[in-house]
Amino acid sequence: MSQLLRVQNFNVTRDGFGAGENQSLERPFGDADPGAMFAWAGATASWPARTDSGGSRGLDDYFTRDFTRNIGAEIMGRNKFGPQRGPWRDHDWRGWWGDEPPFHTPVFVLTHHPRPSFTLADTTFHFVDTDPASVLDQAREAAQGKDVRLGGGATTIRQFLDADLVDTMHVAVSPVELGSGSRLWESPDELRDRFHLEVVPSPSGVVHHLFWRK
Amino acid sequence: MSQLLRVQNFNVTRDGFGAGENQSLERPFGDADPGAMFAWAGATASWPARTDSGGSRGLDDYFTRDFTRNIGAEIMGRNKFGPQRGPWRDHDWRGWWGDEPPFHTPVFVLTHHPRPSFTLADTTFHFVDTDPASVLDQAREAAQGKDVRLGGGATTIRQFLDADLVDTMHVAVSPVELGSGSRLWESPDELRDRFHLEVVPSPSGVVHHLFWRK
Repeated sequence: MSQLLRVQNFNVTRDGFGAGENQSLERPFGDADPGAMFAWAGATASWPARTDSGGSRGLDDYFTRDFTRNIGAEIMGRNKFGPQRGPWRDHDWRGWWGDEPPFHTPVFVLTHHPRPSFTLADTTFHFVDTDPASVLDQAREAAQGKDVRLGGGATTIRQFLDADLVDTMHVAVSPVELGSGSRLWESPDELRDRFHLEVVPSPSGVVHHLFWRK
Repeated sequence: MSQLLRVQNFNVTRDGFGAGENQSLERPFGDADPGAMFAWAGATASWPARTDSGGSRGLDDYFTRDFTRNIGAEIMGRNKFGPQRGPWRDHDWRGWWGDEPPFHTPVFVLTHHPRPSFTLADTTFHFVDTDPASVLDQAREAAQGKDVRLGGGATTIRQFLDADLVDTMHVAVSPVELGSGSRLWESPDELRDRFHLEVVPSPSGVVHHLFWRK
């Protein structure tokens, strides 16, 4: 079995945006309300940040608990890593996730402004200024036979879709609208020429979209 | 997190039967047609017996690939293990699954006719004549902190439901009718007093039923 490039649990609004405009330190998703977009995942038993033994074990939980299965590396865009733009003023910023990031693998951050790698718990961040195919090669080697997760944001996923490098994709469409921001698609139907698509409504209100290559 | 007892990928007909009458060496599911009941699972990329790189990666694949996640032992009834009834004539029978059973963990077979344990590849079968709570204790110890899968058949699952030992249950209801056989339920609604229930239709035609304790 070859190493797949998988988008997992990526969230967009009903009008196709992965995040709003005006990202800042206080608002990682800009004008988008993360509470409304990600409530479905936070309600599940397998949500990584859960500290009690509750949570639902229905359909949505299959998606949250699949997040780490057979994943050996992640690729993300710089705006998923942090709100800064342009050259780094310093290297104090170490991501949004505190001392124990939820990745547990090497993470490759695509940026025109590389900086030294660093490690937090069992996650190591590397910063690379290259094209999608080249960073995918690096991530596959680091993943040691496992799959690679493409973590987003929407602009980064679009780059990999345009380069035809994505093998499978799970996108949760939330029942909210945003009007502007970082767009993944006008409509998921745009991808039907290259992908099988299953549309699975969840009792929680999100609609899971499952793509895999034809 | 405690060790759950989980039913995974158990199949029943629309009228509630897990298998038909007249089980035999040639017909593990008796009068039921396994092709019609299990086609949804066999079509997925993660089906354990798949030897090519094809298969669907939609909703149904989430269920097949979750089969082994965090499972440390299985409990099954004797009729899942084999077609024999009564005392063993000999110990030549080693299950339906050939030299590499798909369990990869200790398996506890409930039977009134114990026989010595044996190992095939990374699966060891134990034979125990006891009650559901006691075999669950044994399986939890063998699972070393992981969950325990309750493998069926329907009669065995009923025993554990009646003893209120089941924590989560995934049952795939196939669009076929059987009329008689080994019955899991008259209706899944029977369990709503004790369990949350999500009913998720799949594009393949099966309807996934997901239960977890209230």
